[in-house]
Amino acid sequence: MKSMNNIKWHESTMSKAAEWSDEGYEAWLRFDPLAKSELEVYTDWCSEIILSEQSVILQAARAELIRGIASMLGRKPMVKAKPSKPRYLFVGTLDCAELEGLIDKKTRESLQEEGYLIKTVENPEGSCIVLTGQTDKGVLYAAFHFLRLLQTGQSLNGLSIKETPRNRLRMINQWDNMDGSIERGYAGKSIFYKNNKIVTNVKRIQDYARMMASVGLNAIAINNVNVHDVETKLITSELLPYVARVADIFRAYGITLYLSINFASPIQIGGLQTADPLDPLVKQWWADKASEVYRHIPDFGGFLVKADSEYRPGPFTYGRDHADGANMLADALEAFGGLVIWRCFVYNCQQDWRDRSTDRARAAYDHFCPLDGRFCDNVILQIKNGPMDFQVREPVSPLFGGLRHTNQLLELQITQEYTGQQRHLCYLVPQWKEIIGFDTHASGEDSTVARIVEGSIHGRPYGGFAAVSNIGDDTNWTGHLLAQANFYGYGRLAWNPELSSEQITEDWVRLTFGNDKTVMETISRMLLDSRTIYENYTSPLGIGWMVNPGHHYGPNVDGYEYSKWGTYHFADLLGIGVDRTESTGTGYTGQYHDIPSARYESLHTCPDELLLFFHHVPYTHKLHSGKTVIQHIYDSHFEGVEQAGELMQSWASLKGKVDDTRFTHVLSRLEEQVRHAKEWRDMINTYFYRKSGIPDERNRTIY
Amino acid sequence: MKSMNNIKWHESTMSKAAEWSDEGYEAWLRFDPLAKSELEVYTDWCSEIILSEQSVILQAARAELIRGIASMLGRKPMVKAKPSKPRYLFVGTLDCAELEGLIDKKTRESLQEEGYLIKTVENPEGSCIVLTGQTDKGVLYAAFHFLRLLQTGQSLNGLSIKETPRNRLRMINQWDNMDGSIERGYAGKSIFYKNNKIVTNVKRIQDYARMMASVGLNAIAINNVNVHDVETKLITSELLPYVARVADIFRAYGITLYLSINFASPIQIGGLQTADPLDPLVKQWWADKASEVYRHIPDFGGFLVKADSEYRPGPFTYGRDHADGANMLADALEAFGGLVIWRCFVYNCQQDWRDRSTDRARAAYDHFCPLDGRFCDNVILQIKNGPMDFQVREPVSPLFGGLRHTNQLLELQITQEYTGQQRHLCYLVPQWKEIIGFDTHASGEDSTVARIVEGSIHGRPYGGFAAVSNIGDDTNWTGHLLAQANFYGYGRLAWNPELSSEQITEDWVRLTFGNDKTVMETISRMLLDSRTIYENYTSPLGIGWMVNPGHHYGPNVDGYEYSKWGTYHFADLLGIGVDRTESTGTGYTGQYHDIPSARYESLHTCPDELLLFFHHVPYTHKLHSGKTVIQHIYDSHFEGVEQAGELMQSWASLKGKVDDTRFTHVLSRLEEQVRHAKEWRDMINTYFYRKSGIPDERNRTIY
Repeated sequence: MKSMNNIKWHESTMSKAAEWSDEGYEAWLRFDPLAKSELEVYTDWCSEIILSEQSVILQAARAELIRGIASMLGRKPMVKAKPSKPRYLFVGTLDCAELEGLIDKKTRESLQEEGYLIKTVENPEGSCIVLTGQTDKGVLYAAFHFLRLLQTGQSLNGLSIKETPRNRLRMINQWDNMDGSIERGYAGKSIFYKNNKIVTNVKRIQDYARMMASVGLNAIAINNVNVHDVETKLITSELLPYVARVADIFRAYGITLYLSINFASPIQIGGLQTADPLDPLVKQWWADKASEVYRHIPDFGGFLVKADSEYRPGPFTYGRDHADGANMLADALEAFGGLVIWRCFVYNCQQDWRDRSTDRARAAYDHFCPLDGRFCDNVILQIKNGPMDFQVREPVSPLFGGLRHTNQLLELQITQEYTGQQRHLCYLVPQWKEIIGFDTHASGEDSTVARIVEGSIHGRPYGGFAAVSNIGDDTNWTGHLLAQANFYGYGRLAWNPELSSEQITEDWVRLTFGNDKTVMETISRMLLDSRTIYENYTSPLGIGWMVNPGHHYGPNVDGYEYSKWGTYHFADLLGIGVDRTESTGTGYTGQYHDIPSARYESLHTCPDELLLFFHHVPYTHKLHSGKTVIQHIYDSHFEGVEQAGELMQSWASLKGKVDDTRFTHVLSRLEEQVRHAKEWRDMINTYFYRKSGIPDERNRTIY
Repeated sequence: MKSMNNIKWHESTMSKAAEWSDEGYEAWLRFDPLAKSELEVYTDWCSEIILSEQSVILQAARAELIRGIASMLGRKPMVKAKPSKPRYLFVGTLDCAELEGLIDKKTRESLQEEGYLIKTVENPEGSCIVLTGQTDKGVLYAAFHFLRLLQTGQSLNGLSIKETPRNRLRMINQWDNMDGSIERGYAGKSIFYKNNKIVTNVKRIQDYARMMASVGLNAIAINNVNVHDVETKLITSELLPYVARVADIFRAYGITLYLSINFASPIQIGGLQTADPLDPLVKQWWADKASEVYRHIPDFGGFLVKADSEYRPGPFTYGRDHADGANMLADALEAFGGLVIWRCFVYNCQQDWRDRSTDRARAAYDHFCPLDGRFCDNVILQIKNGPMDFQVREPVSPLFGGLRHTNQLLELQITQEYTGQQRHLCYLVPQWKEIIGFDTHASGEDSTVARIVEGSIHGRPYGGFAAVSNIGDDTNWTGHLLAQANFYGYGRLAWNPELSSEQITEDWVRLTFGNDKTVMETISRMLLDSRTIYENYTSPLGIGWMVNPGHHYGPNVDGYEYSKWGTYHFADLLGIGVDRTESTGTGYTGQYHDIPSARYESLHTCPDELLLFFHHVPYTHKLHSGKTVIQHIYDSHFEGVEQAGELMQSWASLKGKVDDTRFTHVLSRLEEQVRHAKEWRDMINTYFYRKSGIPDERNRTIY
C-alpha cells in the first residue's frame, strides 16, 4: 500500500499522538505510554518482531505493531527474519514454516478464514508470542488484539486466545454525499468527499480504516444509500479510478469496499429508456457495468441498494418485485463474487394520517416475507433492527423471524439520529444487546437475532451486521467524544455478539482514558446508564417519534402526528398508543412467532417499555410497575432530567483525572444535554397534562 | 427617461399585450380593445392630445396615454402643441398658460401637491377634457385615472373628478434579497436582483413602476428589511450607481426610492468599532453616508430600519433606545429632506413558552409609547396592523391609538405569508378596510386608524401606508393571478381609505377581466368572500398561528405552541385562548383607550371573531352566535371547505368567459385550495376533538 510510506513511524508518530490525542483524534488507538511497572516485561517480549511474509495487510499489521509498541513502550521494536534474543513476537500466517511445529493440527483446523490465535509458546531455546491467523487478515486482527492487551495492562504469560468472527459481514454504511454533506451526520462533513469529488488527502480515510480494522470490521459502503445524481456516477469510468484508490486504502486493512447504487442507473447514466430488471438490455447493461467495476477493483464487495423506498427508484415502476430487482443485480455480480445488499426499509411514505388501518410497522414483513426463497444466494437483505426507524425503543423487526431461506443482515444505526444526535450521551451497545439477544422463536427457543443473521439457524451462506456510521471530519470523529464508544462497541459486537455490554465498555474506557479504576468505573457507569436516561426524558413507553420533523432533534409531541410518514401516537384526552394487536388492531403482533406474538398481544404480558407501541390504553392504565401510564410519564421525565444532571456530576468528578481538553469538551456536551433534557421534560409533561387533565401525584411543576 | 425609448408604441405594444395578457403579465393595465359602441365617442375625444410641457413624469404620462388609448381604440392619438379639431385631450400642470381661464381659482387652490383634476370643458370654439394637477405627478395620476374611465366604459360627458391622496406616503416594501430570493415571496424570484447584483434588464422594474403609479403609490424600499451582508453595501459607492439607475426608473413614475439599512453599517462597512448612535464618529459616519447617497440620488427617500428585532442589530446594544437610534439617522438625513422609517415590530423572540406573564402582543406598545414625543419630525414609525404578525384575524395594534406626537405609518402585508401564500385565494381588502376603519378613540369618536396615520388627528407632518409587496418574477407577477387584486386594492386604499371594498373590487375585475356583468359579479363575490372562507377553515376565533413553523404554510396546531416566538393558544382538555384581560390576564386590553378596552375586556362584549385572542374560555363557552366554541370550530371548518368548493364552482362557471390560459391557471389554484382546505379542516377538527372529547353535534366525520 503505497500511501503507507507517507507515515513516518516512531518519534513523529508519538509527538503527533500527543498533539491530537487531547482532541480525541486517536480515539481508542491512543497507545499512551504505559506505567513503569509494565514496561520491563512487555519490552522483553516486544523489542523484537519476527515477520518474514509479505502482503499489504501484513505490512499494515507490522506498521501497527511498531507504532503501537513504540508509543506505549517508548522504544521502537526491531523487525527481523530470525530472532536474536530469547523472547520475541512472532507475526505471520499459519502457512509460515516457522510455525510448523508450534501450532497443533486441531487448532489450525479450527481457525476459520478471518480467525486468529495469540499464543505464548515457551521453549527452553527461545520463547515467543505468536500472532497468527489462517490468512493475513487474521494476523492483522491478532496484532490489534495484542496491542489491546498491552494497552489494558494484561499479563502476557501463557496467552492462548483464539478468536473467530461470528459474522461473515461486519459492515459500515457511510451516508456520505459527494457534496461533502452526510445524511444524518452529526460530526462535521464527509472525510470521503468534498465539492463533488473524492478527496485527494486520504490521511483521514487511512486512519478510519485503522479504526475499523482494530475492532474487526471488514466491509464498508462509502456512499449514501440515497444515491443522488453525482453519486450515481461513482460506477462510471470517470470516477472508478478514484474509488479504486479508496479501495486500496481499505484493502490494506482487510476491508472490502461496496458502493450504494441508483436502481435507475441504466436510464440516468446508461442512456437506456428503462431500468426494468427483466429487460434484456438492462440486464446486459448491469453485467457490463459489473465487469467495468471489477476491472478497476478486483475485490469489489458489491452493491448496496435502497429501492422503492422514500421516493428512490426501484423495480415497482415496472411491475416487478424486490426479488426481480435484487436477483438481476446479483446475476450481474455473481461471476465476480460480488454481493447485492438489498435494504428492507420499504414502506408507504405517502400515508394518510386519517387512515388508521395502514400500519407502517407491518411494511417490511409484508413486502419481503412473501418473497422468502426467491432471492439468489449472493443477495442479502439488510433489515433495520426495528419495524419503524431507529427509535430509542421499538420492538425487534418480525422480519428476522419470518425469513427462512434468505440471507439476512441486521442494520443498526450508530449515528444518533433519534437518540440525541451526539449532543446527548446515549450509548447504544445495551440497546443492541437487547436486539441481537431477542428470541424470534423461528426455530424453537434460542433463535436469537444474532444466530439468525450469522446464518447458523437456517444455514445461510452470508449474513452479519451493517450499521450507519457516526463519523465525520470533526477532529474527534464523532462530535461527542463519548460517541466513539458506539462505533467501537458496534465493531466488537459485530465480531462477537456474545460479548457483554460491560466488557466492551470497560475495554473502550481503558483504551480511551487509561486504566485508572475510578475513571473506568465512572465512565462505564455513565455509558451503561445513558440509554435508559435518554429514554426516560424523551418519548415514553415505546411510542417513539415526538421529535421535530425533518432534522429529528428536540421534542415535538405532534411533530409526526398529522404527517404522511405513518408515525402516530393517537393521543387524545383519554389515552394514547397504537393498537397493533391481532384481536382489535392492525394485526402487526401476528407477524411474530407464537411466543413473542402472544406476549405482545396481551396487555397482561406486554412489557411496559413497549406498551404504547402495541396497545392504545387510557392514561389511567396500570403498568406492571404499579404506576399509571400518566404517572409513569411524569415520573420518568422528572427522573430523566435528574439522571442527566447526575451524568454531568459524574463527569465533573473526573476533573484532573482526564486531560483538560477532553474533560471540558465532554462537560460542555453534558451541560447542553441537561438543558435540553429539561425542554423534553417540560414539553412532554405539559402536553400530557394539558391533554389528560390528570395532575402529578407528587405535585411537581408542570407548565 | 431614456429607457422609454425602448418601447415601441402602438402596433408592437398591442401585439405584445395580446401575447402576454393571457398569462396575466399586463395585470390591470391590459387596455383590451373596447366594444364598438364606445369607440366612436371615445375616439372623438382621444385622437388628439395637447401637451406642451416637458418633464420625465409628463413624458411617462404622455406615453401611457398613447399606449393605453392606442390599445383600446385601435388608433394611436396624435400629440400636438395646439388642437386641430373641436374635441381633444389637454394634458398639463396647472401652470400651463392654456389652462389660465379654464380652471377657477378655488379649484386650483384646493388641489394639493399630488392631487389632480379631470374636467370636461365645453366651449363653442373647442371642447376638451383636461387632465391636470398641481404637479406633473398629479397629471400622471390623472392620465391613469382617465384610462381607467375608458377601460371601464364610463361616459366622458361633463367629467369633473377631483382627487387628492389622503396619505402623504403610499409605500411598498420589497423584501427582496440580492441573491434573488424574496423573504416571504410566493411568486418567483426578485425582479430587482440576481446573483448578488442589481439586474441589468430593467424591463420588469419599469413595468412594475407603471403598475405602482397607476394605483397612486409613490414610494418603494427596494431591499429586505432584514439587511444581510451584501445588501449592507447598497449604500456604498460600489453599488450606489446601480441603485441610482433604479431610482431613475421609479422617478419617471413619481415614485421615490428608499433603502433598508443595517444599523450596524458603521462597523460592517465603515470600519468603526461601534454603531452607538450617540457616538460622534458614528453620527459623522452616517452624515457623510447621507451626503454620499444624495450625491447619487438627489431625491432619495430615506432609510427603512428594522432594528433590535429578530436578531437585527440596533441601539439596544449600546444601552440606547429606539428614539436615540432613529433620531441619529434622522439628523443625518434632514439636510437632504430624507426620512427615517423605523419599524415597531420589536418583541422578545427568545421567549420561554413556560412564561405566561410575558405577552408578545404588548411589545410594540410597551417599547414605543414611552418614547412618544421624542422622535424627530422626519422620523416615521412603521407599525404592523396588528400586535402579532399579519394573521388572518387579529385586533388592531393599540400603538396607533397610543402615539400622539409621532408620525405613523400603517404596515400591511400584501404578500400572503399567513393567508395562503398565493396558493389560496384570500383577498385582503376587506381585512384592511376593517383595520383602517377601527376607531381607536384616541381623540374621541372617529379616531380611526385611517385618520391617525394620515396625520390629521394629531397634526403630524408625515404618515401613510406601507405594505410588503406580493410580486416576483412569475409572469403574472403574483403567482396566483387573483392575488393581483391585493396589490391593486392596496394602492387604491392607500390613496383613499374611504373607498369601499366593493368599489375597488369592481374596478379591478373590470380592468382585469372586462366589463361582462356576470364575470364582474362572480369574481367580485369570490374575492369579497374569500378572506372569511380562508379564516373559516384555518385557525379559529382570532387565536392565529397553528401553522407549520418556518415557512408558515399549512396547518400545525401546536406548531408554535412550545416555541420561543411568543405565539401560544394554551389549549388543554377544557378550553383554549389567551387571557389578555387587565383583570386576570396579561393586561394587554389596557393598552387600548377606554371604549375598545372595555369591549375587549368583557366576555359579554368581546366580538366572537377575536374571542380567543383576548380570553381563555372552555370549549363549552357560548358565543354571541349561540354556538359553543367547540361547535363553532367544527362548523366553521366544515363550512370553510364547502365554501372553498363553491369558489371553485363559481370560477368553473366562467369557462368560456375568461380566456383559457387564465381560466385554467386560476382553476388549478382553486383546486389546490380545496384539497388543502380539507387538510386544514381535518387536522384542526381532529386536534380539538381528540383534546376536548366533545363530539360534533351533527355527527360529521372527524378522524
